Amino acid sequence: MNAIILSIGDELLIGNTLNTNSFWLGNKLTQLGINVIAHWTIADTKEAIKSNINSAQNLAQIILITGGLGPTSDDLTVEAIAEYYNQPLVFHDSVWDDIQKLYAIRKRPIHLGSKKMAYLPKNAIVIHNTTGTAPGSMYFSKNTLIASMPGVPYEMKAMMRLTIIPTIKNHFTLPFIHHSYIYTAGVGETILSDALVDFEKHLPSHFSLAYLPSVGKVRLRITGKGETEQKLNEEAKLLTKNAASLVQKYIYSISEPSLEKVLGQVLREKKLQIGTAESCTGGYISHLITQIPGASDYFKGSIVSYSNEVKISILNVHPDTIKEYGAVSEETVQEMLLGALKSLNTDIVIAVSGVAGPGGGSIEKPVGLVYIGVADKRHQIIKKMHFTNNRELNIELSAIQSLVLLKVFLETYYEVNFLSEV
Amino acid sequence: MNAIILSIGDELLIGNTLNTNSFWLGNKLTQLGINVIAHWTIADTKEAIKSNINSAQNLAQIILITGGLGPTSDDLTVEAIAEYYNQPLVFHDSVWDDIQKLYAIRKRPIHLGSKKMAYLPKNAIVIHNTTGTAPGSMYFSKNTLIASMPGVPYEMKAMMRLTIIPTIKNHFTLPFIHHSYIYTAGVGETILSDALVDFEKHLPSHFSLAYLPSVGKVRLRITGKGETEQKLNEEAKLLTKNAASLVQKYIYSISEPSLEKVLGQVLREKKLQIGTAESCTGGYISHLITQIPGASDYFKGSIVSYSNEVKISILNVHPDTIKEYGAVSEETVQEMLLGALKSLNTDIVIAVSGVAGPGGGSIEKPVGLVYIGVADKRHQIIKKMHFTNNRELNIELSAIQSLVLLKVFLETYYEVNFLSEV
Repeated sequence: MNAIILSIGDELLIGNTLNTNSFWLGNKLTQLGINVIAHWTIADTKEAIKSNINSAQNLAQIILITGGLGPTSDDLTVEAIAEYYNQPLVFHDSVWDDIQKLYAIRKRPIHLGSKKMAYLPKNAIVIHNTTGTAPGSMYFSKNTLIASMPGVPYEMKAMMRLTIIPTIKNHFTLPFIHHSYIYTAGVGETILSDALVDFEKHLPSHFSLAYLPSVGKVRLRITGKGETEQKLNEEAKLLTKNAASLVQKYIYSISEPSLEKVLGQVLREKKLQIGTAESCTGGYISHLITQIPGASDYFKGSIVSYSNEVKISILNVHPDTIKEYGAVSEETVQEMLLGALKSLNTDIVIAVSGVAGPGGGSIEKPVGLVYIGVADKRHQIIKKMHFTNNRELNIELSAIQSLVLLKVFLETYYEVNFLSEV
Repeated sequence: MNAIILSIGDELLIGNTLNTNSFWLGNKLTQLGINVIAHWTIADTKEAIKSNINSAQNLAQIILITGGLGPTSDDLTVEAIAEYYNQPLVFHDSVWDDIQKLYAIRKRPIHLGSKKMAYLPKNAIVIHNTTGTAPGSMYFSKNTLIASMPGVPYEMKAMMRLTIIPTIKNHFTLPFIHHSYIYTAGVGETILSDALVDFEKHLPSHFSLAYLPSVGKVRLRITGKGETEQKLNEEAKLLTKNAASLVQKYIYSISEPSLEKVLGQVLREKKLQIGTAESCTGGYISHLITQIPGASDYFKGSIVSYSNEVKISILNVHPDTIKEYGAVSEETVQEMLLGALKSLNTDIVIAVSGVAGPGGGSIEKPVGLVYIGVADKRHQIIKKMHFTNNRELNIELSAIQSLVLLKVFLETYYEVNFLSEV
């Protein structure tokens, strides 16, 4: 089962808009066990659209098209499809109703040019747009499914979820695919793959293991293909358990990709309040924590002590400590932890001080040197880290490693088990 | 002059890696006045690579290929190009030297498999890799330039800058292209286009105006094509000045895309110190400011007062103010400003309190309601804003609007002129 993803729009070709639709669709189709053989991005001309649909039809059974469905004169996908199939355009009252309703909800006068969007090729199966104006459409011919969707990502995604994925599942015979994930943080790919080398060697041939790294994190994906769903699920469960047992200290979840969210859930359950004292991370840890809805249940606040003056005046770091050991030192971070516990009046605090760069480095304290600490009233863990030469990356790595240290702290002193779901 | 961008790699097709190379290359080629007619992303098989090069050769004069150049068995681009041209692979001592040197610098043992990368088709013009191991290569045939580059973005970009763009400029006759930019913030596309409707109507036919929006910001790009460089530059300068005069209150720069950096330069010059007091933005403003290298010259720190307790204990907001008016109110933000000025001991502070959502909204204080303020010891500006239903977007818009308010504050009370370079 082959698929081609066709993206239409000059804004993509000339590098004004990043094509995230192909990426998302490629991922979704792969998860369904469909072989994605190409992404084509093309200009919004009828000739280009028609000739690309024609070429795609010779290579693939599923063709997903995004873009070119709006009301303006450079939106030509519908006309091109009609010409490709040699079908007339037909006005759809139900689509025009949808569009009028949406204008009413948004309290905007109806633009008459938008009536164009209610015309679709006679052989179209209409896909109603639940989140915008332009309708999508589907076509079956010569064993091929062609689906045309808007280029607006959330409109496209809603149509995929509600209509196109169910249609694909219904119309084609697909293998059962099972994906399980293991989310790790604070460890590199090399260490994980060393720990998993035997596991991977003995993996049944219908299973595969992928390493999906991002800054400070590696997601492991175990994918199985099979013919009976239940058997596959059981095999996958066992394999995931085995893999998890080999890298357990790095795992924060097997169901939730967000480390901040996982930590938040634990803090909420344990009724623990946290706060941060940040120097080189400049509020980034606080930002990560507060991106999660409901963070106010367990997050009280932060002191971003970017200057030494604020470290002294609000966090109560002793001027002599900074003088003697420097602002980037274990001693300063220790006092930042104590000061933050007191001034924020929380159960647990995170503190960070480092040289993010590019300036400010020295031989003893080079760019990339960062001290991170976590403490409560009775315990303290401080780690010295060496990151990179890149400021942005140092800020991000410091923040993620701080959250990993919080995880270790909760495991060590609060008996939290991040593997309970495995 | 037509170009096609060919990206090779299964990781792109299956949605593991977002294709940012095509986006970047599309932008660069467009800026050179080259017509990008397609981006093709294909599998790493020799058949796919050969047949796509062949198709591209019939449609374009410039074909840029990325990916498939590494040492492993699924890196097949070089072999495919050799077969396409029917040329033998030739070992290049100079490339092998480069690779060995890089291993030496990185203090890693040489991997013998990497010797493969020193073999290139006999008709290749070698592009040495200044930032990695795999070399690139160029080919001229039938009036077409084919360039093959690594998929690693920074390696690809270095080759483009150092070798391929100069080669394109040298080998093809391109029109002179002039781009000028006007960077605005805190205003929507509609208001800008209303102000520029006459300007756009009277734009000479060899010029065009584009609106490039991102969250809270719109970049205006004026592009001219011409045959004599000097005349074009003069025309562009005058047009940019005219456009700028029509939207001047929204402009923060015509040379620097980063609003944070522009504000930082002003603060440094004026020897002003700032800080923030953040509730719903959770440290995000502080993060934006401290992403800029050297921010410690003008940034002292932040109080992220996520809980009311911290608003009261550190920012000295009166409990009765919160009781009477709520944490999200003009009154609370006013006291946050006063408290931050004192506790952070800065010249200027920013304060924000709002309902980011999705929870916490009410009829009087709905999700998206945000108060932002800027103050020094003598002046204060507070604005009530209504943003969206989306938490992430509300945090981002609150932060950007706060920085815009800081800009207005500096214009109003510190006689800063953000248009001086126009």
